[in-house]
Amino acid sequence: MPRVVTLTTDFGLRDHYVAAMKGVILGRAPDAILVDVTHEITPFEIPEAAFVISQAWRTFPKGSIHLVVVDPGVGTSRRPLVVKAAGHYFVGPDNGVFAMIYSEELHEVREVNTETFLRNEISRTFHGRDVFAPVAGELARRVAFGRVGRQIEDHLQPTYDRPVRTDKRNWTGTVLKIDRFGNLITSYRTSEFAHVLEKPFALVAGPHRIERIAHTYAEMDPGEAYLIPGSAGYLEISAREASAARMLGIGVGAPLDLTLFGWAIGTA
Amino acid sequence: MPRVVTLTTDFGLRDHYVAAMKGVILGRAPDAILVDVTHEITPFEIPEAAFVISQAWRTFPKGSIHLVVVDPGVGTSRRPLVVKAAGHYFVGPDNGVFAMIYSEELHEVREVNTETFLRNEISRTFHGRDVFAPVAGELARRVAFGRVGRQIEDHLQPTYDRPVRTDKRNWTGTVLKIDRFGNLITSYRTSEFAHVLEKPFALVAGPHRIERIAHTYAEMDPGEAYLIPGSAGYLEISAREASAARMLGIGVGAPLDLTLFGWAIGTA
Amino acid sequence: MPRVVTLTTDFGLRDHYVAAMKGVILGRAPDAILVDVTHEITPFEIPEAAFVISQAWRTFPKGSIHLVVVDPGVGTSRRPLVVKAAGHYFVGPDNGVFAMIYSEELHEVREVNTETFLRNEISRTFHGRDVFAPVAGELARRVAFGRVGRQIEDHLQPTYDRPVRTDKRNWTGTVLKIDRFGNLITSYRTSEFAHVLEKPFALVAGPHRIERIAHTYAEMDPGEAYLIPGSAGYLEISAREASAARMLGIGVGAPLDLTLFGWAIGTA
Repeated sequence: MPRVVTLTTDFGLRDHYVAAMKGVILGRAPDAILVDVTHEITPFEIPEAAFVISQAWRTFPKGSIHLVVVDPGVGTSRRPLVVKAAGHYFVGPDNGVFAMIYSEELHEVREVNTETFLRNEISRTFHGRDVFAPVAGELARRVAFGRVGRQIEDHLQPTYDRPVRTDKRNWTGTVLKIDRFGNLITSYRTSEFAHVLEKPFALVAGPHRIERIAHTYAEMDPGEAYLIPGSAGYLEISAREASAARMLGIGVGAPLDLTLFGWAIGTA
Repeated sequence: MPRVVTLTTDFGLRDHYVAAMKGVILGRAPDAILVDVTHEITPFEIPEAAFVISQAWRTFPKGSIHLVVVDPGVGTSRRPLVVKAAGHYFVGPDNGVFAMIYSEELHEVREVNTETFLRNEISRTFHGRDVFAPVAGELARRVAFGRVGRQIEDHLQPTYDRPVRTDKRNWTGTVLKIDRFGNLITSYRTSEFAHVLEKPFALVAGPHRIERIAHTYAEMDPGEAYLIPGSAGYLEISAREASAARMLGIGVGAPLDLTLFGWAIGTA
Repeated sequence: MPRVVTLTTDFGLRDHYVAAMKGVILGRAPDAILVDVTHEITPFEIPEAAFVISQAWRTFPKGSIHLVVVDPGVGTSRRPLVVKAAGHYFVGPDNGVFAMIYSEELHEVREVNTETFLRNEISRTFHGRDVFAPVAGELARRVAFGRVGRQIEDHLQPTYDRPVRTDKRNWTGTVLKIDRFGNLITSYRTSEFAHVLEKPFALVAGPHRIERIAHTYAEMDPGEAYLIPGSAGYLEISAREASAARMLGIGVGAPLDLTLFGWAIGTA
């Protein structure tokens, strides 16, 4: 069975960069199945890349290889990694792009030994083509994971997706991602904050205060922002056939303060 | 022979949504050949989606599966459909996205019985991943069409592509689509309005009046808008190395009034 | 082994044009592996297309077919070509899109005889679908190169990538491409202007003067534009985590005057 290789980068689609990587992968593994996740990650935005790959990988077949190249440190000493988790492989720089894989799955991390594992020249500015794509190509042609390089345990593990509790009833979280429809995906996981589905809450975003929950877009009153349990497993801020992001005027990384009324009283 | 699955959505390319659908399809049919039509349909614009898929499907091999997810009614009771026409399969919501398939081809429509045909959980907000992609995956691995669900005949059949005759010599049509080059694709089919190729006409778009026809871009005088028999089978409004849309200042859905001088006299 | 077909166009991703071409290719060669290079070439910008394909093709396996459709002359008498070079095939119009292939590789050029080689109707406005995609499909199913049509030697060969020497110490070049990160790719090949890596130079771009060289983005001082030997084989103008294009306020085609101090004195 040929292996799927997914690609997630901040390279955009106007340049030759993505195609150069694909050529390298097909040169090493001609039967690889290439699937773009996105190339429109905001340049250098590691948390956004971490969120997107964490949402995309799970639907693919086991054995798939997920290449993530958002890499402001290209050319420095930051390490190239391969992570194995839940039967999938993840290839990218040691800069936090796999943060949510680390927090959600048992994982084994290896630092790529480019000298022994690859056999090509390496430029200083395009490791997507010269390091990460060749590694993905080798894995796609089923070279053993153990040959990638030595196992490490000191890889960077940022926690982009953990709201901070600031008081009995209060948390501070953030906007992880704004999707095409203007939905704001928050860092509050629905499973951990299921309280909002049944009891009073207030989510404060700048000058705006959101106090209503919905389960489908169709049940929303137009012109108002709602909290909705999103398909990504996080609470999202949405509005009916409108951009909640524009309505609230906030962007990725903006703080979101949550107060859970009933819950806090119940446990105080 | 592996089956082609094409994808047409309004999901854009910045998010994980399209990749999540592709993972689901490959999980059920690992040898499916995935081809993007576009993910840049204007959000919720059903007529635009109907036009685009009607133009794209015909060049693909028989047996191809065309997934169209432009679905403002996700989470409501609108039905998921599979349409079989001309040896191709079409998967999407019952909201008019297949309007031109219905008007152009003999077709058989089945409502997807998600309980018997699929075997997965279904979220309320992402039926692309949870309903439509699994259906496409099942068809790609050659599950029989009859097993999709019961046949129906009361599917929605809007007529986005039929100009209305308003007088002996006059019709009112519309702009179906604006392409990347600023060409305005009208709802006037060249085959039905071939008159304009040989006799005087006037197409009125807002304050502008178009009276000239061309067959190639090269023969146009710069700075002027022309009618041209487009490759899509419709008359288009074009300008030489310039955006006719910007020149005329109109958008999708704008009215286009056509007068056929010779024809009307000849048949009056 | 199935053949790779890459696609480079100015069609954008909003319309059905690219998908229509892919359907045609898969109709003739169902096992072809389709890879997008980009569809975001600036409309009608032949030099930009020539640069992008020259950067992308080399990483792909031998036998790959590279389709380039940036074709302002569609419908006129400009000739459709197939070029064979370095074991790869290039399909596109005779308008200079293969300029850098011609200058870098031994090549054989054939004019497509559409009547004998293809067996389909040809519209006047969409040769991507009706001429170039069918040609790529035929090559992908291994029809012999010789059957494409007669060999020619008078194909257009512009030199987009050759700076002009204007004085002992001075050259005038240009901006070939601006990438997503705002890096300006110049027409100065690093191999020919390696002098700048070791001796004083000045590159003048409008009111700006660049006199510093860097090898990685990380070693740059923020807020300043540098020359850097780019992964494309050309000198690039870059800035650390910022858009050099915005910093300098110049675009594709802008003149870039280079003075090599040491070199000119040494050879005067």
